[in-house]
Amino acid sequence: MSSKDRLIYLPLGGAGEIGMNAYVYGYGPSGKERLIVVDLGVTFPDMETSPGVDLIMADIAWLAENANRIEAIFITHAHEDHVGALGLLWPQIKAPVYARAFTAAIANLKMEEQGNPLDVIRVVKPRPETVEAGPFKVQFVPVSHSIPESAALVIDTPAGRIVHSGDFKLDGTPIVGEPFDPNQWHEIANEGVGVKVLTCDSTNVFSPLPGRSEASLAAPLSELIAAQEGMVVATTFASNVARLKTLAEAGRAAGRSVCMLGRAMKKMITAAAETGVLTDFPAVIPPEEAVEMPRRKLMLIVTGSQGERRAASAQLARGKYLGLEMKEGDTFLFSSKTIPGNERGVIRVMNAFSEMGVDVVDDRGGLYHVSGHANRPDLEAVHDLLRPKILLPMHGEHRHLREHCRIAIEKGIAAELAVNGTVVDLTGDEPKVVEYIETGRTYLDGSVLIGALDGVVRDRIRMALNGHVMASLIIDEDDEPLGDAWVELKGLSETTRRGADLADMIEAEVNEYLGSAADKVLRDDDKLAEAVKRIVRQVSLEEIGKKPEVTVVTSRLVAE
Amino acid sequence: MSSKDRLIYLPLGGAGEIGMNAYVYGYGPSGKERLIVVDLGVTFPDMETSPGVDLIMADIAWLAENANRIEAIFITHAHEDHVGALGLLWPQIKAPVYARAFTAAIANLKMEEQGNPLDVIRVVKPRPETVEAGPFKVQFVPVSHSIPESAALVIDTPAGRIVHSGDFKLDGTPIVGEPFDPNQWHEIANEGVGVKVLTCDSTNVFSPLPGRSEASLAAPLSELIAAQEGMVVATTFASNVARLKTLAEAGRAAGRSVCMLGRAMKKMITAAAETGVLTDFPAVIPPEEAVEMPRRKLMLIVTGSQGERRAASAQLARGKYLGLEMKEGDTFLFSSKTIPGNERGVIRVMNAFSEMGVDVVDDRGGLYHVSGHANRPDLEAVHDLLRPKILLPMHGEHRHLREHCRIAIEKGIAAELAVNGTVVDLTGDEPKVVEYIETGRTYLDGSVLIGALDGVVRDRIRMALNGHVMASLIIDEDDEPLGDAWVELKGLSETTRRGADLADMIEAEVNEYLGSAADKVLRDDDKLAEAVKRIVRQVSLEEIGKKPEVTVVTSRLVAE
Repeated sequence: MSSKDRLIYLPLGGAGEIGMNAYVYGYGPSGKERLIVVDLGVTFPDMETSPGVDLIMADIAWLAENANRIEAIFITHAHEDHVGALGLLWPQIKAPVYARAFTAAIANLKMEEQGNPLDVIRVVKPRPETVEAGPFKVQFVPVSHSIPESAALVIDTPAGRIVHSGDFKLDGTPIVGEPFDPNQWHEIANEGVGVKVLTCDSTNVFSPLPGRSEASLAAPLSELIAAQEGMVVATTFASNVARLKTLAEAGRAAGRSVCMLGRAMKKMITAAAETGVLTDFPAVIPPEEAVEMPRRKLMLIVTGSQGERRAASAQLARGKYLGLEMKEGDTFLFSSKTIPGNERGVIRVMNAFSEMGVDVVDDRGGLYHVSGHANRPDLEAVHDLLRPKILLPMHGEHRHLREHCRIAIEKGIAAELAVNGTVVDLTGDEPKVVEYIETGRTYLDGSVLIGALDGVVRDRIRMALNGHVMASLIIDEDDEPLGDAWVELKGLSETTRRGADLADMIEAEVNEYLGSAADKVLRDDDKLAEAVKRIVRQVSLEEIGKKPEVTVVTSRLVAE
Repeated sequence: MSSKDRLIYLPLGGAGEIGMNAYVYGYGPSGKERLIVVDLGVTFPDMETSPGVDLIMADIAWLAENANRIEAIFITHAHEDHVGALGLLWPQIKAPVYARAFTAAIANLKMEEQGNPLDVIRVVKPRPETVEAGPFKVQFVPVSHSIPESAALVIDTPAGRIVHSGDFKLDGTPIVGEPFDPNQWHEIANEGVGVKVLTCDSTNVFSPLPGRSEASLAAPLSELIAAQEGMVVATTFASNVARLKTLAEAGRAAGRSVCMLGRAMKKMITAAAETGVLTDFPAVIPPEEAVEMPRRKLMLIVTGSQGERRAASAQLARGKYLGLEMKEGDTFLFSSKTIPGNERGVIRVMNAFSEMGVDVVDDRGGLYHVSGHANRPDLEAVHDLLRPKILLPMHGEHRHLREHCRIAIEKGIAAELAVNGTVVDLTGDEPKVVEYIETGRTYLDGSVLIGALDGVVRDRIRMALNGHVMASLIIDEDDEPLGDAWVELKGLSETTRRGADLADMIEAEVNEYLGSAADKVLRDDDKLAEAVKRIVRQVSLEEIGKKPEVTVVTSRLVAE
């Protein structure tokens, strides 16, 4: 360790939101640190802030500029908010990717979708296997979460040991994957000089009770499913392979044939089976067979726990899906929680089922779902177990990170609330903020990546709020208006409060203006457009109370 | 009661959603029933389904067509979802309006805002005062809710007694207004032949525990507020005058001066004071004085419990508001629940406060908020007390109405799940659905009322999702293209995946097409527009993966 070398941490996504995780560690001379990236995830758009957008991910311009400094990318687990942007962003950084087998299988699908090379991802076994990436030595440590083979990373650097928790919970009986192993964590805490930095999941920091095990769901789910008279349809997160197994086993135990609907679920089950994660999943039947089964002998497990419009649950809420449909007396079970912001979609599905006479069971009582993240007491247990010098809270909104810092500081751990873009120097005993990197969000919009602040989405929101008026003018060779202006409305009432035609009224005002406009305005496209916009907005405001977006197209005839 | 007369019920809003309440009762010969309307409320728009819309209310076309049959409008209480559309819709029906004093004060403001006459609203005292409206005799019965002077209606008709619950809870100590009076309800149940129909609030039918009293909040709120070192800012629904009082008293008891921020709150307090509902509200200070107070001697009570962008809480989350601002060590209290769908806005405010170092306290534990609606056991208590022959569940989404029916039917009460537009004949012992009325939603958009299905909002949503391309063409006197087509983009990436200019690429394709287009297409505006749209969409899809909305403006030069 040269005296000029430093160890840095830079979150680009996930610190200040739950989603689009992307974390960077660096070691070396200031400004020339060698870098590793942990996770490249996405978050999902909404109508309010990002209408029409397909996916949201971190703006990695800084990484792209420093691509030659990047030693490796590590993916902790296969959830979309950790791996979903890999295929989209990899071309900008082109470093080798390391992951455990199941995660690698999903990551490969992401690479394939975007036409990237498939030999980039290297499968790593759990600790003690170690990846050497420049000055970093990295081990994958199995942790429990709501997807198979989730991992924490033990990152050894010349400046000390970092534990990057990934997403985790403490579960002694996780159904699929390795149980929480306190001995292994004890070892990690006590090797050498111990843990310098814990970068830690903050999702459930506000949940006051210890987390519950995945295994605690088996009995209540079996009881519920066995008690139903009609068809049972259950939904959960497609990637929660343990839950899928518990649900399927409960269905089978109740004498029901199980059929799984939804592409995301099939993809996960296939990856889990192919990578040996899942060995004894109950037999399932295809939809063609399910259609023939008596309802009380059938259970469907479907995608769409968040009310997503295209998922199987929403399709069933609208009618037939692959020949199957819900009927009076059937039961629909949400073995999931609603992520804040998705309430409207979920409630829409619930009411559609209610209209069909289907009984909806949700997780109101906590019987049919457990979280995949460590609750506050579990976070504290991990603090106590690892005794880090420094805590960096991640995977949380600002309020989660702040609360997590508060808990750590109460325990005498130096904690730093570093949001996306903050460069933290971890070389000394205390974290130091040394720089802020320009960062933000990148949108996948159709097939192009655009910046969140490019103005594209802002214009969409404005059109959605205000409507859009297009005015078309022709100016002749002598800079005189030729014919009348033509106005088209989109997203605006055609009729005014007084029953007149709005487009006609605007056209009349614009034409009156054009008839008397100064030559210097008529000669100047920008001035003319400004004047016409003003008139359009004024008439609209008076007549219908709206100030629309306006596009003026001026066509100029040129002397031939 | 002539043998041909019938008693009918027709919900136009509120039965199938929580919001925009509007219920109709009729009595008389079929098709000629005399009518009364109960409540004319609004619901609030969202970006997903109604971008740019100001307010949503029931489509009352049917009432407007039958305006001459309407005897009266009754408003149960002054919440927006019960009175918010009165000023906007009254001109279509022009019947006298009846309400209790506080409700009438708010209703008058609604009438005034829309320039309606102000002598329309008549103030009614509680039962035994009775309004005769055609064949109906109507009494207002005080009930507890989260706003002063909420009322149930006892509606006597020749076919029997209807109790229309309005919004209510069972509260023996409501702080403001009359406590729940079991004797009065016993009387109502036992006069004459008892209650034929109970039309009943269903909001909290899924809440399994008995509701808690408003008075139960005083101690925990006082304790919390007294314990804070910095400024305390509390938010709740502006109309919850009892809560405002409890909060203000807790602030005063903690030695703090209290300042109220937000127009909606002032309006409510003024109306409550002027109508004598509120007699001993603690003294408050204006913002100019509050600015001068030491922080630990100050408490603000502000609007914006739902994270509304323009309310005081969101303004404080963004910075200064009327000279006041939040600082590290201050506390912000949500004495409210987040209405499903508003989570994103509330969380945005919470995180903004977290960034300022402000501690946010919400109702997670149930200590600082109670609901204004009857929970399931309370609903059952009312069923048992009134023993109606027929239950009509209202004020709920489909799933709430369905559950409410289920409970009633288990008790042997005939229940009918009648959603908006359903005409139910209540003449006999069992409810009978006899007709469906065309119904739906009306939007206030700027200053005009538009139909939800007019296409205006659909076009906005499409522009928001897909972007908008305008193509402008000039066709000369000989039906030949004059010059090149001109394309403008709005809400679309200007640059394609390969770095080219999208507008240029579209123009090139359109111009190539125009150069070889058949005469019959060039002569026909519709065919031409169709062809150009197809080209625009195809190029956009190939180059950026989007299928935009397209407006084609064709200007034709005419021989002079």
